[in-house]
This record gives sequence, C-alpha cells and structure tokens, in this order.
Amino acid sequence: MFKSFKGLPDLPYAVAPVEQHNLEKQALGEKYQSDILDLIQALIRKPSITPKDEGCSQLLEQRLGAIGFQTEYFNKNQVTNLWAKRGQSKGAPAVVFSGHTDVVPPGQNAHWHTGPFEPTIKDGMIYGRGASDMKGSLAAMIVAAEHFIAQYPEHRGSIGFMFTSDEEGDAVDGTKHIVHTLKQRREGIDFAIVGEPTTDKNLGDSIRIGRRGSINGKITIKGKQGHVGYPEQLINPIHNSSKLIHKLATKRWDMPSRYFPSTSFQLVKVHSESGAMNVTPATLEMVFNFRYSPRNSFEKIKSYVEKKAQKYGLEAQFEWEHEASPYLTRRGKLRKTVQKVIQQESQIKTKLTTGGGISDGRYIKQLATQVIELGPCNKTIHQANECVSVSELNRLCHMYYRLLEELLVKVVDKN
Amino acid sequence: MFKSFKGLPDLPYAVAPVEQHNLEKQALGEKYQSDILDLIQALIRKPSITPKDEGCSQLLEQRLGAIGFQTEYFNKNQVTNLWAKRGQSKGAPAVVFSGHTDVVPPGQNAHWHTGPFEPTIKDGMIYGRGASDMKGSLAAMIVAAEHFIAQYPEHRGSIGFMFTSDEEGDAVDGTKHIVHTLKQRREGIDFAIVGEPTTDKNLGDSIRIGRRGSINGKITIKGKQGHVGYPEQLINPIHNSSKLIHKLATKRWDMPSRYFPSTSFQLVKVHSESGAMNVTPATLEMVFNFRYSPRNSFEKIKSYVEKKAQKYGLEAQFEWEHEASPYLTRRGKLRKTVQKVIQQESQIKTKLTTGGGISDGRYIKQLATQVIELGPCNKTIHQANECVSVSELNRLCHMYYRLLEELLVKVVDKN
Ligand SMILES: [Zn+2]
Ligand SMILES: [Zn+2]
Repeated sequence: MFKSFKGLPDLPYAVAPVEQHNLEKQALGEKYQSDILDLIQALIRKPSITPKDEGCSQLLEQRLGAIGFQTEYFNKNQVTNLWAKRGQSKGAPAVVFSGHTDVVPPGQNAHWHTGPFEPTIKDGMIYGRGASDMKGSLAAMIVAAEHFIAQYPEHRGSIGFMFTSDEEGDAVDGTKHIVHTLKQRREGIDFAIVGEPTTDKNLGDSIRIGRRGSINGKITIKGKQGHVGYPEQLINPIHNSSKLIHKLATKRWDMPSRYFPSTSFQLVKVHSESGAMNVTPATLEMVFNFRYSPRNSFEKIKSYVEKKAQKYGLEAQFEWEHEASPYLTRRGKLRKTVQKVIQQESQIKTKLTTGGGISDGRYIKQLATQVIELGPCNKTIHQANECVSVSELNRLCHMYYRLLEELLVKVVDKN
Repeated sequence: MFKSFKGLPDLPYAVAPVEQHNLEKQALGEKYQSDILDLIQALIRKPSITPKDEGCSQLLEQRLGAIGFQTEYFNKNQVTNLWAKRGQSKGAPAVVFSGHTDVVPPGQNAHWHTGPFEPTIKDGMIYGRGASDMKGSLAAMIVAAEHFIAQYPEHRGSIGFMFTSDEEGDAVDGTKHIVHTLKQRREGIDFAIVGEPTTDKNLGDSIRIGRRGSINGKITIKGKQGHVGYPEQLINPIHNSSKLIHKLATKRWDMPSRYFPSTSFQLVKVHSESGAMNVTPATLEMVFNFRYSPRNSFEKIKSYVEKKAQKYGLEAQFEWEHEASPYLTRRGKLRKTVQKVIQQESQIKTKLTTGGGISDGRYIKQLATQVIELGPCNKTIHQANECVSVSELNRLCHMYYRLLEELLVKVVDKN
C-alpha cells in the first residue's frame, strides 16, 4: 500500500552546503523544540523508578494513538510494556524504536541543585532524573514520528515503538517479554533503533552496534577458622583465595576484535571477617562480573574459573548468572544509513562501538535483523543533576526523523 | 630474718619410689580438694566478664589476708588489680603468682549444657566459664599458699600475688599497670609463675617459657570506583591488593629458633564492596595480625609491609598497633625447678614452648628475672562447656606447693 513512496528523491540535507544546512537545522530545531520540551518535562515529572511507569507509557500511547498507531500493553508482573505500530511491513521495512520509561533512583537529594523530578531548564540544559537516560530520547522519538507522519502520512513499511518500565532493573519482564510476545506472533523487525545515550561529546560521535555479554558470579571459599596463635591448625580463606584473585585479575581472557575489546573481569565485592582480631575467618565470599566479547562464551569462562579454583586447592562453591549474551549488528543498511545521517547532521564520522553497560539491544537483536543504539550524551546518566542539552535533543529528533525518511521513504532493500 | 630455713633437707617427694609417691599424691589431692572446690565454685559464680571483677579479688584478698598477706588494690579505670605480699625478699627469692579474675563472655547460652556461671561437677570435671582459664588456677594457687604457710609459717623470701580483671581484654590497665606501679617502688621479682592453662593432655606436659610478640594492623587501599563496562577508567582495589596479600601470606618471615616458631601472618578481615553488581568498589580494607619471634621486630615487619605495598604501586594507608613484645625466660633456676617438679609429680618431661596467644607474662618479664606459665589443660578455654578436671586441679595445687618448697625452703640462689 505504500508503493507510492518508492523512488522519492534524496532529501535536501544530504546535498545542502554546510552554511545553509546549519541554518536549516536551526530552523528544524525550533520546529521540534516546543513539542520536545513539553513531552520531556511531562515525563520527568513522573517519578518512574524501576519498575514503576507512573503513567509515562499512557502519555506516549496517547501521542502515538493520535497519529494513527495501534497500541497494546504487554504488561508482566510489576512492569508496564507498551507496543505501538503503524503501517504494514509487507515487502517494505519494519522500523522499530525502543526505549525505557523507567529511571534509576535519584540517590541523595542533597546532591541535586533542583528536584530530580522537577524538570528545570537552565543555560540550554534540561535537568532531572532520566533527562539523558532516556526520557529525552523518548521525547525525540515521538516528536520525530509526529513530524514524519505529518509529512509522509502514507509512508511505506511500518513504524513500531516498544517501551518498557524495566530496563534499569532485572530487565526480565520488560523488553525481553515484548520480544517474546512479538516472536510468538511472528512479527518481524528489520531495523531497530534504541534510544540509549551513546554520545561522548558531540551528538552521534559514537553509536552502539552491539554490546558485550555479561556474567555475574559469586564464589564462596571455605577455610577452617582458628586462633592466630595456632596457624598450623587453621586454613585462612583470605590467604588461599589471593592466588585465584590475582590470576583472574591479570589474565588476558581473549584478544580484542574489530568492535569488541577483550573480555574483562571485575570483582565488585570481597568479604571475609571473623569479628575478632585474633581469630581467622571461616569463609570468604567474592562477587564478580564479566563483560565478555563474542570471542568468549559463558561456558568457557565458567569452566576456566572453576578449574582454576580446583587447581589451587580451594574448597569453593559457585553461583553463576548469565545476565546477557553479546550481540553485534554487522555491516548493513541500518548501520550505513545511521552513519550517513550522522555525517550529514553532525558533520562527524561516528565511531562504531560496543562499549558501556548492557542494554535491551541484546533482546531486540533476537528479533531484529539489525539493531543500533543512538542517543544523547551519556556524561551525567545515573548521577545527581542528570541533564541533557535542549539543542542536542532537537538535533537527535531530526536524526530520528531523517532515519525514517531514509528507511521508509527512499527505495531501500532490507540489507 | 628467714635464715633459719637455710639448709633444710630435700623433701620426700624427690626421692620416694613411684608407687609410694602416687599414694602420697592421692592423699595430698584429698587434702586440697574441698578447699579448691569451695574456692573455684565461688569464683565461677561471679560473672566477671572483662573488665568486671564482680568481687573475685575481694574473695582472694580475704583468703590471703587470713594467712598474713598484706594486700593493696592498684585499680585503674574499670579494672580491679590486686597486689598481695607476704615476707621479705632481702637476700632470698621473691616468688610471685600471677593470674586474672576476668573471663571471656560465655557466648551463646544455648551451647552450654549448664549455666556458664553455675559451677557444675560431673564425672570428675567442673564446668563453668573460667573453669580452666583461669579460676581453677587461682583456686590452686591460693590453696597451695594456704597449705604452704601452714607448713612453713616462717619461710624465707617472699610470696606475692598479682591479680587483674583485664587480661582477656585490652590488658592495658591490668597487669601492665601493676608492674608499672611495682617498678616505681623498686619492688623486684625473682620468680614469677603465671597460671595460664598450658597443658595439652597431661598436667604439665607443656609449659610456656615465653610468648611471641603480637602486631595488629589495618591497611586501606584506595582505588578508583567505576562501572564494570568501562574497565579502563577504574582502578579496582580488590584486584590490586591480591598480589600484596599473596606475597604476605606466602612469605617466610624468619627461621624458627629453639623455642620460637617462625613469625606468622594472618589476615582476619578483608572487605571491599560497592553495593552494586556493575560498579567496582572505591577502597579495600584489610585487618591482620602478626605473631612474631624475637628474630624479628615490630619495626622490621612494619617497614617490610609498607615498602611492599609501595613497590606494588598501591595507594595505601596503614594503621599499626604493637600489641605485645615477645619475651623468653632462658635456662635458670625457675625453669629447672619447674621441670623437676613436673617430672616428679607427673612423671613426664615437660615441653618448653612459646605457643598460643599472648599473655600477661610479657609485662611481668619486664620486672621478673624469670617467668614461666604453668596451668591446667587448655582444650576447652573460651568455648561453651569450658571445664577442668578436679584431680588435675589437686595435682596443680600440689605442684604450686612444691615450687614454693623448692624455691623458698631449700637453699637456692636466684639463678
Ligand atoms: Zn538507559
Ligand atoms: Zn587466660
């Protein structure tokens, strides 16, 4: 039904000289600005600490419903999951935006100059919990879609939105559940754009084309408690574990690959204590995390650690959680288009990375052929006085708009 | 004034054949038994948890006053310190018994079959907190002195008793303070006998002729907190300290000497925690103890540890407490006499050791030429259902009695 859009010409931004181009961007910024500000402020006012949604999804649903999206909730346990779709993807791409409505707790209020849930604009920045992670991106996505639908009401392909209130938490009832539900319906996704804040300094200077895998683990090492005056009668678990810790901390797990750094190991906790100055402890507990590259695997890492502990003669108990598998979006239409749009809009060559934490991208990749993550500056995320630049959001909104144009207006194939 | 005792003949125990000797010991045991039982039970009934004395010293003071001792209290802060003396040591030995009235807390009552402060006799054992450490020794000392004074009212030399209610605690206001006070008075001690439980299996099979030194320390290692996803931006104090821990845990600090094992190092606590699975901690804290032989020193150990931390590039802060210096009583009259009495009374060759925890012997050695520690079996000290054998106490009492005879009745020099 969207065949009429086939063969539309390239849009002017791609060819405009730099000066004119900047003027136009400024004009566009102003075009989006009041819509974005209204929406991000309304979202920040809702204290949607994981897994609470506090009406964020309802607000997004209203905006999308008003421009012809069909909306559904896939709630699970405490989590609010919204799925919205407009258009048909038969023979044309299905483009999906993904985001989360939840935010991490504000932490100590004393560190905030203004209330974390009272959006405040100062010197071109909007302050508030979730401003950059990622209520700003949500506003930019919605406003981009609104302007895009107004401009191209009969675009080809389909646009989808998936929003969850459980990304910052365990993330097991959120995007994972949406993807599971869509899979059962045989709903396919060609191009997925996740709004996580990926920018280092200048909008789009860095995007995520994948993420490392993540493993959490706990090792409990058993010793034999005793009095320090009788060292021959005791087994000190602190002493005995030091060799294992040193080995794991200094091991080169694998070589870096083109997009992935080497697998890294970090202990986040070690604890062993007898409670007395002259008595050694009975056990030691250590908690750690692996961020691993696709060159490694959960099974290989688990086996290595357990064998080393055994080799060092440790009486050890292990608990393992395979938190996330790695994912990677290889060279293809989406990556190429995002690179092109960033080049046009920011006049910079974007860096393709897989750094940072884990994201819901790993779940979406199970359904979507290509997934990239593009969002604003991540310098203040999860911190007091989290903020985002108003002009950056305007430009991000326009990038999202331009991506829709490139993917759903121009003739494209799915690769 | 005690010149009349010069040249008294050897006592029969030294020469009696074994059969007759055992019979006599049994008879002696019965002679002491009711006195010892009365006193140890009265002492156990007083819940004198460090630094409380709960009237223990008053009871001992009454018993000693009744047989001609002059008594004084050298209390300091919360601690009760009793000093009692009888006789003059001009030209003749000053013999001092040392002990503590305080006990460690009973711990969980549920683990005790009978109340920790309700002395209970069952199958030849007396149960109760302090039974073996060291209210049993206190009773044996007092009863030995009572019988000795009755037998030799005009013994030569002097007998002293020093009791404190702060041995199991910090021990800074206890025997240390008594010794300090006596030093200021120029009160000398030739032979000191500490009642700490030193026996492994058979009474007197092991005595302490010294103790190792003790050092407590704490190291705080500073890192740089960060997200596990950005390992290049963080400094993990758990990783960085593992090399130091391994080095200190495996180092041979010195060679064992005739009476001292090698210096030993034990970590009693290690703690580092960020509170989040994906964030590394900012600091690590470790607490340790050294038991060191006279071949080493506080200064050498401190300097080694601090230099190693620096060599490994650690940003570390140190806290040091020199808890106890080592002491050693070399070959001399007291050691020889104790060995002889044990041989006679238990028909065993005693082992001269410096093992176990620290004791007040280290303070007394600053004043006394020779210090040995001899007491009952230490198998149940500081545990639930602490107990001591009634017959062992009878024999211990007789050993103390025999030591007084050997040191204050026979002609002896001070070496
Ligand atoms: Zn986020
Ligand atoms: Zn003791």
